[in-house]
Amino acid sequence: MPRFKELRRAYGFDEVAIVPGELTINPELVELGLEVGGFKFPIPFMASAMDAVVDPSFAIAMHNAGGLAVLNLEGVWTRYDDPASILQEVASANRDEATILLQKAYQAEIRDDLIARRIHEIKDGGGVAAVSVTPLNTKRMAPIVQEAGADIVFVQSTVTTARHESSSMEGLRFDKLLEYIHIPVVVGNTVGFTATLELMRTGVAGVLVGVGPGAACTSREVLGIGVPQVTSTIECAAARDYYYEESGRYVPIITDGGIRTGGDVCKCFAAGADAIMMGSPFAATTEAPGRGYHWGMATPHAHLPRGTRVQVGVNTTLQKLLYGPTSRTDGTENLVGALRTAMGMCGSHTIREFQQAEMVVAPAIKTEGKIYQFAEARR
Amino acid sequence: MPRFKELRRAYGFDEVAIVPGELTINPELVELGLEVGGFKFPIPFMASAMDAVVDPSFAIAMHNAGGLAVLNLEGVWTRYDDPASILQEVASANRDEATILLQKAYQAEIRDDLIARRIHEIKDGGGVAAVSVTPLNTKRMAPIVQEAGADIVFVQSTVTTARHESSSMEGLRFDKLLEYIHIPVVVGNTVGFTATLELMRTGVAGVLVGVGPGAACTSREVLGIGVPQVTSTIECAAARDYYYEESGRYVPIITDGGIRTGGDVCKCFAAGADAIMMGSPFAATTEAPGRGYHWGMATPHAHLPRGTRVQVGVNTTLQKLLYGPTSRTDGTENLVGALRTAMGMCGSHTIREFQQAEMVVAPAIKTEGKIYQFAEARR
Amino acid sequence: MPRFKELRRAYGFDEVAIVPGELTINPELVELGLEVGGFKFPIPFMASAMDAVVDPSFAIAMHNAGGLAVLNLEGVWTRYDDPASILQEVASANRDEATILLQKAYQAEIRDDLIARRIHEIKDGGGVAAVSVTPLNTKRMAPIVQEAGADIVFVQSTVTTARHESSSMEGLRFDKLLEYIHIPVVVGNTVGFTATLELMRTGVAGVLVGVGPGAACTSREVLGIGVPQVTSTIECAAARDYYYEESGRYVPIITDGGIRTGGDVCKCFAAGADAIMMGSPFAATTEAPGRGYHWGMATPHAHLPRGTRVQVGVNTTLQKLLYGPTSRTDGTENLVGALRTAMGMCGSHTIREFQQAEMVVAPAIKTEGKIYQFAEARR
Amino acid sequence: MPRFKELRRAYGFDEVAIVPGELTINPELVELGLEVGGFKFPIPFMASAMDAVVDPSFAIAMHNAGGLAVLNLEGVWTRYDDPASILQEVASANRDEATILLQKAYQAEIRDDLIARRIHEIKDGGGVAAVSVTPLNTKRMAPIVQEAGADIVFVQSTVTTARHESSSMEGLRFDKLLEYIHIPVVVGNTVGFTATLELMRTGVAGVLVGVGPGAACTSREVLGIGVPQVTSTIECAAARDYYYEESGRYVPIITDGGIRTGGDVCKCFAAGADAIMMGSPFAATTEAPGRGYHWGMATPHAHLPRGTRVQVGVNTTLQKLLYGPTSRTDGTENLVGALRTAMGMCGSHTIREFQQAEMVVAPAIKTEGKIYQFAEARR
Repeated sequence: MPRFKELRRAYGFDEVAIVPGELTINPELVELGLEVGGFKFPIPFMASAMDAVVDPSFAIAMHNAGGLAVLNLEGVWTRYDDPASILQEVASANRDEATILLQKAYQAEIRDDLIARRIHEIKDGGGVAAVSVTPLNTKRMAPIVQEAGADIVFVQSTVTTARHESSSMEGLRFDKLLEYIHIPVVVGNTVGFTATLELMRTGVAGVLVGVGPGAACTSREVLGIGVPQVTSTIECAAARDYYYEESGRYVPIITDGGIRTGGDVCKCFAAGADAIMMGSPFAATTEAPGRGYHWGMATPHAHLPRGTRVQVGVNTTLQKLLYGPTSRTDGTENLVGALRTAMGMCGSHTIREFQQAEMVVAPAIKTEGKIYQFAEARR
Repeated sequence: MPRFKELRRAYGFDEVAIVPGELTINPELVELGLEVGGFKFPIPFMASAMDAVVDPSFAIAMHNAGGLAVLNLEGVWTRYDDPASILQEVASANRDEATILLQKAYQAEIRDDLIARRIHEIKDGGGVAAVSVTPLNTKRMAPIVQEAGADIVFVQSTVTTARHESSSMEGLRFDKLLEYIHIPVVVGNTVGFTATLELMRTGVAGVLVGVGPGAACTSREVLGIGVPQVTSTIECAAARDYYYEESGRYVPIITDGGIRTGGDVCKCFAAGADAIMMGSPFAATTEAPGRGYHWGMATPHAHLPRGTRVQVGVNTTLQKLLYGPTSRTDGTENLVGALRTAMGMCGSHTIREFQQAEMVVAPAIKTEGKIYQFAEARR
Repeated sequence: MPRFKELRRAYGFDEVAIVPGELTINPELVELGLEVGGFKFPIPFMASAMDAVVDPSFAIAMHNAGGLAVLNLEGVWTRYDDPASILQEVASANRDEATILLQKAYQAEIRDDLIARRIHEIKDGGGVAAVSVTPLNTKRMAPIVQEAGADIVFVQSTVTTARHESSSMEGLRFDKLLEYIHIPVVVGNTVGFTATLELMRTGVAGVLVGVGPGAACTSREVLGIGVPQVTSTIECAAARDYYYEESGRYVPIITDGGIRTGGDVCKCFAAGADAIMMGSPFAATTEAPGRGYHWGMATPHAHLPRGTRVQVGVNTTLQKLLYGPTSRTDGTENLVGALRTAMGMCGSHTIREFQQAEMVVAPAIKTEGKIYQFAEARR
Repeated sequence: MPRFKELRRAYGFDEVAIVPGELTINPELVELGLEVGGFKFPIPFMASAMDAVVDPSFAIAMHNAGGLAVLNLEGVWTRYDDPASILQEVASANRDEATILLQKAYQAEIRDDLIARRIHEIKDGGGVAAVSVTPLNTKRMAPIVQEAGADIVFVQSTVTTARHESSSMEGLRFDKLLEYIHIPVVVGNTVGFTATLELMRTGVAGVLVGVGPGAACTSREVLGIGVPQVTSTIECAAARDYYYEESGRYVPIITDGGIRTGGDVCKCFAAGADAIMMGSPFAATTEAPGRGYHWGMATPHAHLPRGTRVQVGVNTTLQKLLYGPTSRTDGTENLVGALRTAMGMCGSHTIREFQQAEMVVAPAIKTEGKIYQFAEARR
């Protein structure tokens, strides 16, 4: 009998659910704090390094709200003194034009002075200055970033690994990088036990988990590559626990991509995340610079864009998104409240305990839609 | 090789079907009686403690029809002398306003005199007075309820466990509660073998099964929490049988949430239920107070509502819903007749036998829709 | 660890596909003959005992086409001298009225003289007279049927088993029935290995397989009962083979319900069927009496109808449906040609060989729909 | 306990995803070359032998672009001196007429002079002349094809096996054929380990993999036959590796059918393909002769057509389809760039390495659609 390639089953948010526990606790007993690279945050929520989500003033607002926002250093904020007109154009364009517009806008050069200026703006506002660069530009930009006083550097691309081969130059090696960069480095994105473990062994301060699932990401269509978030979080969490046992160092993993509701947030933690990073939900706040639109970092790629501009509307505030109160019943506001409530129902005092919650495979069924349909058929 | 968190597969109504038996019996030979806390009911059907479903007069009608309706003691019926105008407002509101309206309406105080009055109204009408309170209010309200002459108390929240931690006061302990409350206590909702077993060991008279699946419930979206009803019924039924063997005491389990059709009803019992509880189908009867609308107990939550107002229409009577005759072919009337017929096809003389019926995983396919589509494509 | 009820996975037509063989043969080498109760048929196709499908003249046409049509002896053809006006009314009614109309029409008494007359009409036309009765009426009607010269009796209800309990009288026992009825008896419907085996041991000439899947059947919605056809055919085929080994008697199984296309037909045989029975596809021929409409035998049930009137249109002829030629590419014509072609691709000389074809679980994907969508999005 | 027929699970493109590797490499380090029957091609892309896709001038263009196009020798190009008017008629017809029109057009005789002329046209343009014939016509046409100077012969039908039975003549035997045909023969289509292995043992130069999945193919509906492409590629790749070990001869497998996007292309190779063949995407280029329409080789079948005319539009060029640059984000342009990028993310230097990439079962979820829906519901 021949051996065939085997395919494991992987699961996304809409395919799983959390099982309540045998103990319940009141939500106010729940502890949510997060520590990354020596910095402590009251809530384990991060905003994605996407141009329509985070500008310096959003970063400050997010800091004041208890979380962390990451500024993209290779987007419009470091290419233009004032990108307002470009953001307006993107928001006004029709869907097909939007990608072309973005491709063009991102051809302007990245200016070192703007990198420094944006970091100063965040620091001046009292925020933790977290910034994002791609592996390709890390060697050049990391010293500038450090000098400008940034607190955390995110080195981020669609897929980032501890080992990389390149013809034109030696690939980025994180262990080397960490010898001359003395601020914490968070790396991503990655999926898989071994890839995560190898990244942690280079000494990084955190790992971003998720390839393919974001709302503005089309890696699945374009490249066929991607792993649903619940499974990728479960596997990277196993790597974190393995590495913690091996080294005594606890490196938080941050699930990044595809999170839209309180239910999704809760599932990330129940699957093993230490923090979550979101784009679309933050893009829909009044504090975000995107004017109700949103796109991924791979959308402006000159030859092979792998993301789309997504219309999210402007329909909430950062405060309501995170803490409510809300009258929405679809899980799109009061995400921190939802997390506290879910943890209470699972008897989890801490995120670390919540990571042990039982989960089931249970495809989502739109019960409300069904009942409406039934009612209409009757009348 | 690292150990990853494992996810069991869980099933809902639309994913399973009952397999007919090797023996068939005539429907009139089928026995449907239910006993809960010493009370006997001709049919194992309960109406949910939801404001749009059960008021005192509905409770009396349901009693006369052979089943049991539960009155919510923390809804409009104990906050207002006459909630008619509020129910009318909710029915007239558009979808987004409805939640806000409900949040406001439920801020009025719960009056002890109205608790007693509603119980008396049911008793005066000859009904079994079953009432529902949340764990938070149980200590305060249970003595009032008992004094007013209630027959059964349902202590009910989204997730209720035998163990609960609270900062502000000692959590509700059912074993303690049962020392000074001398009427039967039914508790819920719960899922899972161990949680159910622990609740039964406190001495309760029944357990409500189901977290997340109701038509008016959005716990899955908001919190990510929920277990499909077929699987949760199977597991809680195993706990009941285990506890029966352990203690000699038979504690019925009541599947509550997401039941819409005769097919759903039959699947509950085949999965192991002793009784079923429904909201939406009863809300659509002329006897219900909801004017064709329906909402869950967590919908009016002030900060994190987890349910929506659902339009069900008013399109049947309690009599037709339960006993027919009907000309509908979609399973939404004559639910008792459907249960008898299905039991006959499985050769089950009693609910206890029907709990042993074979089931298969068989995703529902809308054959009718397909044939229509085909016909239209042809013409 | 407690033991939970286990659910097997069951499969329907749209979830499976046939794998081509390692040998291919030309379609003209394929042999399709069927034998039931001593009668031989060139093709293993049967038309369902449904009022909109089979009247005496359709039965004759079907005989001439090489297959077998079964006349329902408890429908309009034995209640009315000329049911033309009733069929016209049903075709003209709107969807909700249709069931009420059918319930009323089927309250007229079944007349013994019409039973005999219909059988004579088929015999006079040269056809094999196959007729269908329900178990309830079998004792009374079987002698009349035999006397009138019928060739095969189908005893048919939603679920029929070898053992049946009834309060009002002794249930029908097939072994007793076969002592005084001397024409072949085909029984159904059934699913499951044991139930099929028990029926075969009573001496019946054939077994109808299928509970729940028909286009005009809503047993799944109303009762929750049903097993998808591929799985039920596989299990009943195993019973047939087991019984053949046990007794030396080969009892054909006939898959009945839910078959719409050539692909469905082929999957029945590959799953183990000896013959297939269809309703909807025959109802759409010009030869059928239903005027483009179609309903199941349980649709007119007075208290709990479990089927709907389905509009199929009149869009083909019996000849084209079975033998083509066709210009349709959706598998709805030339079903015999499709069966021959598929058997050729699997290297099967006979139905018996084709029953061994390999199958895979492979959910149907509407590729054409997708490509259209993509094309439209582009323009 | 009886033994039931077992069904393996098979997977298509939309059900799987590729997992990134633990090493990443720059796309320019990736090597894509393909060798078939002694011919080398810079990219492993082939265009299907379909009349709306490949004419002699398209074959030349495809050669210049680095791939291989196959000309159908039993279509309009060998039946008509100038099929322009027929292609125009097909493009202008409505959907139902199109099949009838095609059936009629393909009744014209195949002319030997046109076979030779088309081959010469390709050779004169500098292309590799690859042509396709059906097994039925191979004996007659192979010598003509060889004499005319063709470089590679594809012998192709819906299902082709090493063993074939026919009543009218001895079936085509590839081992015999290869004794007198001295140009490489590629055979297909096939699925399954054993069928592929048997074909390779006859000495063929390549095997086409895929039965049922193409956009213009309706074998699943008409015959119930088909295996999703990811699984069929996995199994045929196992046969290739097995045969390579057995014989030392490496016979490339070409996945053919259902490929629409860069993601699909990448999944084919990750599943084990050496090359891919596409119809629809090429039919949508300005170079294709189909005027924005496309149909399969089994569509014009006189008695049992198994394919439809599909509208794909004319919306790209061969250059952009294969190499970009593009502003599309749905994976429908720059397929070679997508393949290079995906291989880089998986750390694969060669196709042979990429065949070892890890894959998961991960049903596609339309995240963008969901976010839109959510946004609209809010406004």
